[in-house]
Formats: sequence, C-alpha cells, structure tokens
Amino acid sequence: MKSHNIVSLIRKKRDGESLDSDEMRFLIQLYSRDVMPDYQMSAFLMAAFLNGLNDDESASLTREMLHSGTVLDLSMVPGVKVDKHSTGGVGDKTSLILAPIVAACGVPVPMISGRGLGHSGGTLDKLESIPGFNVNLDLKRYVEVLKEHKLVLIGQTDEIAPADKRMYALRDVTATVESIPLIAGSIMSKKLAEGIDALVLDVKFGNGAFMKTREDALSLAQRLVVIGEEFGKRTVAYLTGMDQPLGNNIGNWLEVYESIECLNGGGPKDLLEVTHLLAGTMIYLGDEAGTVEEGIERSKAAVQDGSAMQKLRDIVAGQDGSTEYLDRPDDYPAASHSFEAAAGKDGYISAMNSYIIGMAGVELGAGRKSKEETIDPAAGIILEKKIGDPVKRGETIARCFTNKEVETDTVRQMLQDAVTVGSFRPDVPALITDTVTRDGVTPWS
Amino acid sequence: MKSHNIVSLIRKKRDGESLDSDEMRFLIQLYSRDVMPDYQMSAFLMAAFLNGLNDDESASLTREMLHSGTVLDLSMVPGVKVDKHSTGGVGDKTSLILAPIVAACGVPVPMISGRGLGHSGGTLDKLESIPGFNVNLDLKRYVEVLKEHKLVLIGQTDEIAPADKRMYALRDVTATVESIPLIAGSIMSKKLAEGIDALVLDVKFGNGAFMKTREDALSLAQRLVVIGEEFGKRTVAYLTGMDQPLGNNIGNWLEVYESIECLNGGGPKDLLEVTHLLAGTMIYLGDEAGTVEEGIERSKAAVQDGSAMQKLRDIVAGQDGSTEYLDRPDDYPAASHSFEAAAGKDGYISAMNSYIIGMAGVELGAGRKSKEETIDPAAGIILEKKIGDPVKRGETIARCFTNKEVETDTVRQMLQDAVTVGSFRPDVPALITDTVTRDGVTPWS
Repeated sequence: MKSHNIVSLIRKKRDGESLDSDEMRFLIQLYSRDVMPDYQMSAFLMAAFLNGLNDDESASLTREMLHSGTVLDLSMVPGVKVDKHSTGGVGDKTSLILAPIVAACGVPVPMISGRGLGHSGGTLDKLESIPGFNVNLDLKRYVEVLKEHKLVLIGQTDEIAPADKRMYALRDVTATVESIPLIAGSIMSKKLAEGIDALVLDVKFGNGAFMKTREDALSLAQRLVVIGEEFGKRTVAYLTGMDQPLGNNIGNWLEVYESIECLNGGGPKDLLEVTHLLAGTMIYLGDEAGTVEEGIERSKAAVQDGSAMQKLRDIVAGQDGSTEYLDRPDDYPAASHSFEAAAGKDGYISAMNSYIIGMAGVELGAGRKSKEETIDPAAGIILEKKIGDPVKRGETIARCFTNKEVETDTVRQMLQDAVTVGSFRPDVPALITDTVTRDGVTPWS
Repeated sequence: MKSHNIVSLIRKKRDGESLDSDEMRFLIQLYSRDVMPDYQMSAFLMAAFLNGLNDDESASLTREMLHSGTVLDLSMVPGVKVDKHSTGGVGDKTSLILAPIVAACGVPVPMISGRGLGHSGGTLDKLESIPGFNVNLDLKRYVEVLKEHKLVLIGQTDEIAPADKRMYALRDVTATVESIPLIAGSIMSKKLAEGIDALVLDVKFGNGAFMKTREDALSLAQRLVVIGEEFGKRTVAYLTGMDQPLGNNIGNWLEVYESIECLNGGGPKDLLEVTHLLAGTMIYLGDEAGTVEEGIERSKAAVQDGSAMQKLRDIVAGQDGSTEYLDRPDDYPAASHSFEAAAGKDGYISAMNSYIIGMAGVELGAGRKSKEETIDPAAGIILEKKIGDPVKRGETIARCFTNKEVETDTVRQMLQDAVTVGSFRPDVPALITDTVTRDGVTPWS
C-alpha cells in the first residue's frame, strides 16, 4: 500500500476528486484500527455526501467495509444461495413470506436482517413476535441451520462488516445518512458478507420509504446493482411504491399473521404481487426456474401445495420457536386495548401517508423511536381500507391494538391525518415501476 | 434560546440553508461545553466549507467564538485602540516596525500575535529573538503595559477565544482550513477579543501567501471588513502582493535587524512602503491624523525624529527584554554557519517563489514544520536580489545563516529553484493592489 495522508485524502474528496481503491482501503482500514478518529471520518463522510462517490469508489468502500469483518463462505452448502433486501417500508413483511417459499422451491436463503427504527419495521422484530424464535445464532449454527432447512433467519452479528456498523452510527449523528453511495455501500457490505451468490433488491419509494421519489430510488437501485455485479453476484432490483402501506397489517405479530394468511393461500393482492415477484426472481436466480415468470409460477405453487407453509413451520422449530400460533394464529394473546379510527366524510380513500401510519404504529408500541426502546409484539394497526376504496363517514378505516395506555385521540388523529378522503375515485399508485439489472432499466408493464 | 437539535443544524448547513444567530450560538456553545463532540463539529465544518457561510453566519460564528472566552475591556485606556493583522507571508516584519511607530504617534496598540508555522513566520518568534523579551504576560499586566507604553505585544492566551482554538485545531486535521468564512471568523474572534476599537488588515496574496489569488484575497478582505464593521469596529483592509518576500531578511533575528534598520531611517523600499501605509492608516483610525495620507506623513516623521525607535527600546525594556542588541544589532551572536546561493546564469530576477524561500528558511532552523519544533533565532536568509534586479552567473542571490548541520546543497538548490532568472527585465509584481473599507473596494493607484 502506498503511503497516504488522511488529511490529504479528505481534501481530495472535499475538492471533488476521486479516491482510488488503494486510497479507500487506507482510510477504512485506519478507521477500523482506530488510527483515524471519528472526527476525520465524519469530515470525510460529509465531503462524500456533498461531492458524491462514483461507482468505483462505491465498490471500494463496500469492499473495505465487507472485509473489515467475517465474510461467510457458504460453498459447502449446495445450490445457488440467494437473499433479498428491502430498503424498508411500512407493512413490508415480504421476507416472512418469500423466504419459506424460495427455500421450499429448493433455493438456499441465508438471510441476515435488521430491526425496525422509527416508522419502518424490521424483520427481526417480526420474527421475535413468535415465542421462542431465536435470531441470535452464532455463525456456526447459521451454516448448520441453512444446510438443514435451506433457510436461516438471523440478525447482524458484530463479526459482519464492523466498519459499516461504526460508520452507520457515525452517519446517524452527523447528518450524513441520506447519501445514495453511502447507503449502497452499507447495504451491500452486509449482504455480501452473508456468503450469497445472488441478490434481489426491493427499492421502495414514496411517502413511507427512505427514498421519496422514483428518481432517487432508481439511482440507489442502479448503484446497488453495479456494486453487486462488480462483486460477481447476479443482482436484480425492483422499484416498488410505498405511497401506502404494503398489505393491511402493520405491527410485528400482525404482520406474521398476515404472512401466514398469504402462505395459506389468502392475503391481500398488493402484498402477494410484490412477494411473488421477488420470490420468483430469487427462484430464477437460484437456478430453480428458467425465467422470472416460471419462478413466479413456482412461487405460487409452493403456496398452493402447502410446502412453503411447512417450510415456515420447519424453520421456526429449527430456530427454537413455537409453531403453536403458526397453526392457530387466532389464539395469539390479544392486545389488551383496541380501538378504531373512522372516516370523517363520505368519499374514496385518495391518498395515504405511510410515514404517519408507521409513526402511529410506533405510538401504539409496535416500533421504537430510539434503539433502546422495547417493542410490544401484539401492538399495531390493521387497515380496513386502502387507496381507491369507497368509505362512508364514520366507517372504520383502521383498527388499532396496543398493550399501552395510549392517547387514543392522538393516534386516531394521526390516522385521520394520514388518510385523505376525496370525492372521486382516484388512480391507485403504481406498485411496481421498474426492473434494474446489469443490462439496464426496464419500466414495469 | 430555542431548543435545537445538533443533527438537524448540521443537516441544514449540509442542505445549503443558513443558520440564524440563535442556531449558531446553540452549536458553538454546545461545542464549547463538550456536549457537541468533535465528530459532529467536523461534519458541520465540512458542510460549511463546501456550502459556505453568508455574512450573517460569519458574524454569528465570530461572535460565539469571541464570547467563548475573555473579551478584554480596554475602556480604561484612553484613546482609540488600533491593531493590525496580517494573513501571513514570508519576510513580513511590518508589525515590529509599525507597532512602535503608531504608539509613538499617540495611538494605543494592543497587539496579540501568533507563532510561525511552515513557510510563514510569526511575530512572537521574532520578538523572542530579543533576549529576555516576554510575550507571555497575563491579561492584567497586558493592560498595565499598554497603559504605560501605549503598546503591548503578547501571544494568544488560553482565555482568548478558546472555541476558535479548538475549532482551528480540528480544521487542521479535517481538511477544512482553507475556507474564507471560517478563516475570517477565526481571525476576527481573536482580534475582537483584544479590546480594540479599530483594525487594519493586510491581506496578502501570491505564491508565499495563504491566498494564492487576488480574487480570494479580496473575498477574504471583504468578509473581514464586514465582520469588523458589524461589531462596530472601523476596519480597513489592504491587499498586498506576496509573489516575493517582503524586504530582504527572512528569519527571526534577521527580521528584527531589518526592522531596526527601518526604524533608524534605512531599510528596503517595499517594506517601508507597506509599513508606512499600514501605520498611517492605524494613526488615521486612531484619530491622530485627519487622513490616511497625513497618517503616513506622521509615521515617517516618527521614524525621522527617533521617537519610534525609542518606543521600541521602551517596549522591549517594558516586557523584560534586553535593549543591548537594539542599539548594537551587529553584536548579536552570529550563526555558526553561513553560505551563499548564486545565480545559475546571467539575466534578471524575473520571479521568486516565496513559499520555497520560506521553506528554505525552515530547513535552516528559522521556522518549524510542526508546532512542537524549536526555532533558531539567528537562522535565516538575506536576499541580495529581488525581482527586477540584474544578476550575473555566479553572483550571490542570497546568504544563508544557521546553527544546524544542514545539507547546504539542498538549501542552495531550493533557493535556486525559487528564483527564476530571465533574459529580459521583468515587470515588478504589484505591491499594494486594493483598499477595502465598509464603502467598498478601491484599486490602488
């Protein structure tokens, strides 16, 4: 490695120049070894935020964060290992449904997930609403469970991309979170550490997503695909809308409940559409289907024949969870309080603010405002109406569940603020808008 | 004070918005109290570097850094207190000459100076080459000496603008030094803390200055004047060239020596011209002359009648220094080694790189590369030629003095690299180019 000077590399990025892979390695390695202090990294991150990182710099950053920790080798597990990552939204429980589907179709799914923060939920919290479910497997057991079930669902360990973990915490307190190349590097360093061979990405945009516009989501999706392919992993991204929650249920157990409905052949149309697309693409990338369309057919068949639901039972049992409520979900201990929010006038639901709905869920105890808060697994919201549905004044829009003494009027008001009732039947916002692969961007038709 | 969130204020600056005075106060106060850590301040500083600070933000930043420490009240000292600040250059010893001149003319000069770093010298180091001279007076004695002599020359204490001191150190290691609003805030917070009523600024530009171009120097000068006037202090700035060293001597005692020459009626023309302009302006702002021109006449008269030289003797004695070498400068202990650098060909000196000449001085021991290094008071360079002078091959360009075992060939080569000999008589670079006051910019004629 050439000898570099930390300050001169910060200056280089400050002045809008690019760092080569050697220079990026120097910075991230010195940061990992505590030679480069946080105050230099935060200056670098702000310069990178404002001046950007090109594709090569993104790939270098990803590589160095990836190699700051353990990179799992899953070559002893037969098959093409495929995972899915979503940039997060409200009511997004696709992982819970597609992971057992894809595994049931023979494609190994090594999935490392995160927790929810703010309006956006996390797969780990949802899994933990199943009594006994253990998301804290060590990496040895991670491999064993994956081998046995073609599926494993755990949380990020300290061994995975520790440099990203530290940098993410630093970005959070220095206003350098919302940068496409930094977000892309953070996502991909964690995903690549899982030992996957291919990756499907669900990049959400809209009022309940991290990316507010299709344009930003597209930039992020393109960056993610470039990085994935640079590392030799087949990577496909879909842009999906988050201008209303996905499905009807928001809250940890409520989302498991809705996932069980889907695996039993029911469930809402929008959730099923996104889930089968993502699952079908994973099955295709996992070489268990010749096309994405064939993958989608296989995905639907795995629901129909019960193999996906059986896979969920197996993995829950395999990770120390109780399968009792999978088979009798209505027996799950109900929240102590429930109440309803109603429409203020006649008309059609014309818009929803998913962010506010997510924050109403947090008020009920379904999410956390800070990392330290605990979660109430039974808390949440069931939407009775979605965009395009006709409503009468006083008719229930949403049902709320909580074990806390909450200000019901506050939550009701949030939900009424979040839901716009108009006089005319609106256009329903697009659910899936674009496919991004190494070959380019294809608008969804 | 409104309640603010540090991250949201960093984000505001990151997004190119402006912070109001309340918000700036919040940040600097929390930083001063160690509530805001360095890593947040460095992210803010990088955002400010890249997105700028407007005049109001500069003034707020200056005010908060100023009030982070002691602001001296010199109202018990009669007269209009005036100081001068230079942005630094090579061979710039004007302070040593003009401070006694202006005080001799009846204008109190409370001067807090800095040390040299890199190619650029510092007034404190020069003063300390006078045996016994004490620059570390406490603030009580600072006022007493000023009262008695109308002059005092000290170094920055920990009580003066401590927030600036910490922020400057942080900027130094995070590549956020070269920002006009941040530089302006740093300069003005320290100068305003001195208790001055008016300020003259020498903003240098060229290859030996911090600002490389007239445009950058003008921006800085305008910002400095705006801030000074915002604080109710009459502020006048001059733009002066630093494309060759000022005067002939570079090095601490050598610069005192040349200053004594000037105060005794000799000295080089360029140095005298800048010094009398700055001194004359100080005398004018100090109400001891009706115009700058009259101030310049009074400045020259104070040299002619010996009162300025006497003032230098008085202040040296008043700050515990020996006056022995002021009266017999040639008795000063000579450096143990001396050698010469010669012209490589016949022609005219057509350009000089002041930065390299300054760094050659550092090699000889006249300056320091890092803050910890000590200085050799007798080390330095005397230029025998300046731009426009004819030279013959082998003729001496510069004489070098040192007490160290230096690689004489290295220093000779640096000086030869720094001095361009051309075939034609060149234009001598402009010495003074512009005057900046609250009324605007006036080109020098």
